[in-house]
Amino acid sequence: MSKDHLVIFTPSGKRGHFPTGTPVLTAARQLGVDLDSVCGGRGICSKCQITPSYGEFSKHGVTVAPDALTPWNAVEARYDDKRGLKKGRRLGCQATVQGDVVIDVPAESQVHKQVVRKRAEVRDIIMNPSTRLYYVEVAEPDMHDPSGDLERLTAALRRDWDLPHLEADLGVLTTLQAALRKGEWKVTVAIHLGDAVFSPRIISIWPGFYEGTIYGLAIDLGSTTIAGHLCDLQTGEVIASCGMMNPQIRFGEDLMSRVSYGMMNPTGAAEMTTAVRDGMNALFDQITGEAEIDRQLIVDAVFVCNPVMHHLFLGIDAYELGQAPFALATSDAISLRASELDLNLHPAARIYLLPCIAGHVGADAAAVALSEAPDKSEDLVLIVDVGTNAEILLGNREKVLACSSPTGPAFEGAQITNGQRAAPGAIEHVQIDPVTKLPRFQVIGSDLWSDEDGFDAAIAQTGISGICGSGIIEVIAEMRMAGILDGPGLIGSAEQTGSPNCFPDGRTHSYLLFDGTAHGGPKIAVTNTDVRQIQMAKAALYSGARLLMDKFGVDKVDRVVLAGAFGAHISPKHAMVLGMIPDVPLDKVTSAGNAAGTGARIALLNTDARREIETLVHKIHKVETAIEPRFQEHFVNASAIPNAVEPFPILNSIVHLPNAKFNSGGDRQGRRSRRARTG
Amino acid sequence: MSKDHLVIFTPSGKRGHFPTGTPVLTAARQLGVDLDSVCGGRGICSKCQITPSYGEFSKHGVTVAPDALTPWNAVEARYDDKRGLKKGRRLGCQATVQGDVVIDVPAESQVHKQVVRKRAEVRDIIMNPSTRLYYVEVAEPDMHDPSGDLERLTAALRRDWDLPHLEADLGVLTTLQAALRKGEWKVTVAIHLGDAVFSPRIISIWPGFYEGTIYGLAIDLGSTTIAGHLCDLQTGEVIASCGMMNPQIRFGEDLMSRVSYGMMNPTGAAEMTTAVRDGMNALFDQITGEAEIDRQLIVDAVFVCNPVMHHLFLGIDAYELGQAPFALATSDAISLRASELDLNLHPAARIYLLPCIAGHVGADAAAVALSEAPDKSEDLVLIVDVGTNAEILLGNREKVLACSSPTGPAFEGAQITNGQRAAPGAIEHVQIDPVTKLPRFQVIGSDLWSDEDGFDAAIAQTGISGICGSGIIEVIAEMRMAGILDGPGLIGSAEQTGSPNCFPDGRTHSYLLFDGTAHGGPKIAVTNTDVRQIQMAKAALYSGARLLMDKFGVDKVDRVVLAGAFGAHISPKHAMVLGMIPDVPLDKVTSAGNAAGTGARIALLNTDARREIETLVHKIHKVETAIEPRFQEHFVNASAIPNAVEPFPILNSIVHLPNAKFNSGGDRQGRRSRRARTG
Repeated sequence: MSKDHLVIFTPSGKRGHFPTGTPVLTAARQLGVDLDSVCGGRGICSKCQITPSYGEFSKHGVTVAPDALTPWNAVEARYDDKRGLKKGRRLGCQATVQGDVVIDVPAESQVHKQVVRKRAEVRDIIMNPSTRLYYVEVAEPDMHDPSGDLERLTAALRRDWDLPHLEADLGVLTTLQAALRKGEWKVTVAIHLGDAVFSPRIISIWPGFYEGTIYGLAIDLGSTTIAGHLCDLQTGEVIASCGMMNPQIRFGEDLMSRVSYGMMNPTGAAEMTTAVRDGMNALFDQITGEAEIDRQLIVDAVFVCNPVMHHLFLGIDAYELGQAPFALATSDAISLRASELDLNLHPAARIYLLPCIAGHVGADAAAVALSEAPDKSEDLVLIVDVGTNAEILLGNREKVLACSSPTGPAFEGAQITNGQRAAPGAIEHVQIDPVTKLPRFQVIGSDLWSDEDGFDAAIAQTGISGICGSGIIEVIAEMRMAGILDGPGLIGSAEQTGSPNCFPDGRTHSYLLFDGTAHGGPKIAVTNTDVRQIQMAKAALYSGARLLMDKFGVDKVDRVVLAGAFGAHISPKHAMVLGMIPDVPLDKVTSAGNAAGTGARIALLNTDARREIETLVHKIHKVETAIEPRFQEHFVNASAIPNAVEPFPILNSIVHLPNAKFNSGGDRQGRRSRRARTG
Repeated sequence: MSKDHLVIFTPSGKRGHFPTGTPVLTAARQLGVDLDSVCGGRGICSKCQITPSYGEFSKHGVTVAPDALTPWNAVEARYDDKRGLKKGRRLGCQATVQGDVVIDVPAESQVHKQVVRKRAEVRDIIMNPSTRLYYVEVAEPDMHDPSGDLERLTAALRRDWDLPHLEADLGVLTTLQAALRKGEWKVTVAIHLGDAVFSPRIISIWPGFYEGTIYGLAIDLGSTTIAGHLCDLQTGEVIASCGMMNPQIRFGEDLMSRVSYGMMNPTGAAEMTTAVRDGMNALFDQITGEAEIDRQLIVDAVFVCNPVMHHLFLGIDAYELGQAPFALATSDAISLRASELDLNLHPAARIYLLPCIAGHVGADAAAVALSEAPDKSEDLVLIVDVGTNAEILLGNREKVLACSSPTGPAFEGAQITNGQRAAPGAIEHVQIDPVTKLPRFQVIGSDLWSDEDGFDAAIAQTGISGICGSGIIEVIAEMRMAGILDGPGLIGSAEQTGSPNCFPDGRTHSYLLFDGTAHGGPKIAVTNTDVRQIQMAKAALYSGARLLMDKFGVDKVDRVVLAGAFGAHISPKHAMVLGMIPDVPLDKVTSAGNAAGTGARIALLNTDARREIETLVHKIHKVETAIEPRFQEHFVNASAIPNAVEPFPILNSIVHLPNAKFNSGGDRQGRRSRRARTG
């Protein structure tokens, strides 16, 4: 006791007194300092690296002598020889305390290390994976006290790692005896630490010390695309990312056509289930191929998806989701074994699906909530995940509301005359000169504007093939700002607008963006029908958001987050000119990128986050737009550009929106007569 | 409060005061009286039948008026009309309390009813199955408060049945929505109530009230035969029983030859696993066919088997069990899903394997312990499960010891010159006249002795083909009593014994039992080699038992239980003449029949019994005969008939064992010279 030394760990600040000869790892464990170890202090895994600091530390009131730790030993020397130990580093299990000492635990030596996210406003991910590796030395069998190999293995795990009662997967039982003997009673095991459904269990075993790692998958299963991130479950690092089209597309582009396919064909739902699971296995092939790893090393996978994808993936007919009251078969989070879904991963791999919020607001929206954490926001944040359906969240620390709104596929370039998916050759940015009222544009694949030198050469490969979703938003907003389009959404004639690019097109006018016909290319124009499609889509989006604001009892929000791949490419100014989103300062509109995918990754790397989102989803107040009378009213108002009744003062302080009105009732008459003709 | 009435339940004696109008079922539940109900008191299931008693009950100090319960109501009348209600019975959920009343709960209305066992000395089985049926009415979906169908189902189950958090099997998730709607939001579910591995979960769902039952299987997976009992999980009744040969027999008759097959052939272990699982599925076909039930209704199955069968069934190579230190891959009980073992039952059916006691003392021995409960015995009981290996248990309330002893297959008629399996035509009982020293015998298939009138006609169909296990024990014991065989195990000559049936056979003598050669039949005799085989087998058995007695610190036991199919046919007197079992009064030797199978059935019907045997197995002291020096000493002594050193006073008080000695060292010399010749 008289020989106790003060040991201070940084950055935690945890401190305690320990007798001479205490290994640093032991001291760390006793103080609850987060210092990793897979081998349990046997100098094998090198996970417990620490950096001792020497000299005077007035802050801690301690002076660390050069001999405060034992000198570099043979185990450390061998490790350094074989793999190299960073300068100043020691192995925490080898260096023992000889005097007062200050010890820094570098980030990579922490179990619950932070995985840094790119954006500043969101919290980092703390590592707390479902499955961890443990190295252990097992007692040999003894005829005088017979017991099973498994029972001696679990006893060793209990003794060395303080683990609770452990089950073993059948795959472990069948390989256990060979592994123990090959490893001479030393093995590494992967243990799934358990959740609400599964008790803690050993799911994999390797003879001796396993030098590799184990992996997890974060999957964003969208109606159109499936995106997967392969993560190292020890470091949190993304090892590979892959995307592919959802093979269900052949059964219908949008969700409702897939629901219909299931209704019209007796085996339809089952076919779609098989298709998406086969697609998933193809994605696993691709991603493990890219990362050059064995798929048996993938032990955990987290899925986020909308409710229809969720049901079809699980093998549940999505019939009920196609009609009121849009009842989900289940809304809570789901834990399964990969084999139950015919997924070719480690046979005992776990599958976790985030909870759904409501029949139209799925696990993908829950993942966005997990990533963007509206429930932790001091200010009131509106989060919009823009896709075929828009999922909308509004909230702050006080409460969170959610709804979905059927925007349709117009924002993705579908149902637009010259619309196309975002791909090389698509017009993605547009500017219209307020004086000449002529357009210039940028095409995906080049940073040059169409009126800049070298543009033709730069796009020679791709050509100019159409307008993508962000392009159509920009051009319509630019048309509105340039006085080519009026508030109600009518394109003026060349005379009315002063733009030579306006031309009559049936009973309305269109606006020419690019005429490639001279060179055998397309003629790309915005028709008034295109404008109507975007008006419908943006009105659906805005009225959903507005409805949540009503329910929250507010008239404005503090900030707007655009999520979804599309959200990353939307220009906030143009979105606001269109009245897609409420009136906020432009610098308060940010993009979260694929927030659903990020949410999946958080849930993969930190199982506490699963409990967190399960709790949050139960607290989120769901609003069903279909049965809210005010939704229709908001929708009608939001059909105008930007809005028939709401003033948008911040927007009006930034841009000038001409007060043109090109129609005097003729359009409505015109449409009525068209209908009469075709009727 | 002033209107409270006294309600007394019999046989429990539980009593309480309840206001006018309280349903009897409600009163029972509040008092914790064991009164069944599947429908939760909705007058549908009729499980809550009770019998009110009227008149004066001085014992309870209460007089029950004729109107103590409400009159017979419409629900009861309808039920009586449709199915018939026993005289005096009421539905506990319909009859309400109107005055003081005494109510009897008949056995069949109890959840934890007793399943009566045939034998008097063993306790009854109390029903407490793994899986139960629950009827429930579920709230319809509400767009204003969206939630999943499953979540509303589990909420209803929590509300009506006070069940904990429930998971749902994937198979339930995929059928849930259709079942709820078809049943108009009324469904019956089967819930597996959970164990150490699985959390409570819904495994099956039926629209409306399901009038059927659910089933479980108790399987005794032996090296030679597989026996299965199909049980009703609500009543405990055995609905059908089936047996079949273990298809693994083609890989080797005994355990060690199968272990060798696995060692010699790279895919050997896997082939044997496939064979036994295929066989199991064939057994399921057979038993469900016989019972005419859908195999999807089998939701639980309990298996007992020896360690080698246990490992091969699970897909574990039994290699380690073939050599010291006989390490089991796992000894604890195992819970799995049927699908993990490719068993064709309900897809979510649970599989439970009892724990193994040691590398040579398997789950079958654990099942015997569960059935025969040595740990609950006041007196010291020796339990012997006689098969190819004998599993031996010795114990009382104080402690229980276990070992196994390699008896070999001689007791089953194998390796005996004229030995055969117990089948029609086999000699099963033998008597030798002490004066004439001539034998008479009984053959399986007839009750007549061979010297009785009509014997030839009775056995005309089968003939006389050989001696089965119990026959060989009887004939050798009879030979010993008649002075044809001496204590060391040598058959005397006709001159020495005075029996004309003794004849020279090589360098020793044989004893003729039956000569059918005149009619083209066999000549059935007992050779001295046969005697040696039985001596080896019985010495192994006895020395195992004696070793346990040493370890227990006793020289005698109070009673002996012979388990196993063979045990049922052994004559206690003859067994004791052979010195197979210790010296006890003959009426203290009983047969437990297939105690392993009974143990499986207990574990199937009462999940508490699973915890019980798991606990007991940990407490059982295992003795490994192979490393106990005294085993050899006991073995040598026990090679004599009955024993070279132990006096067997009780036996000697019943039978006279002649003190003949037919050898004067010649046999030993003879064998030595034979060896020299062949060497």
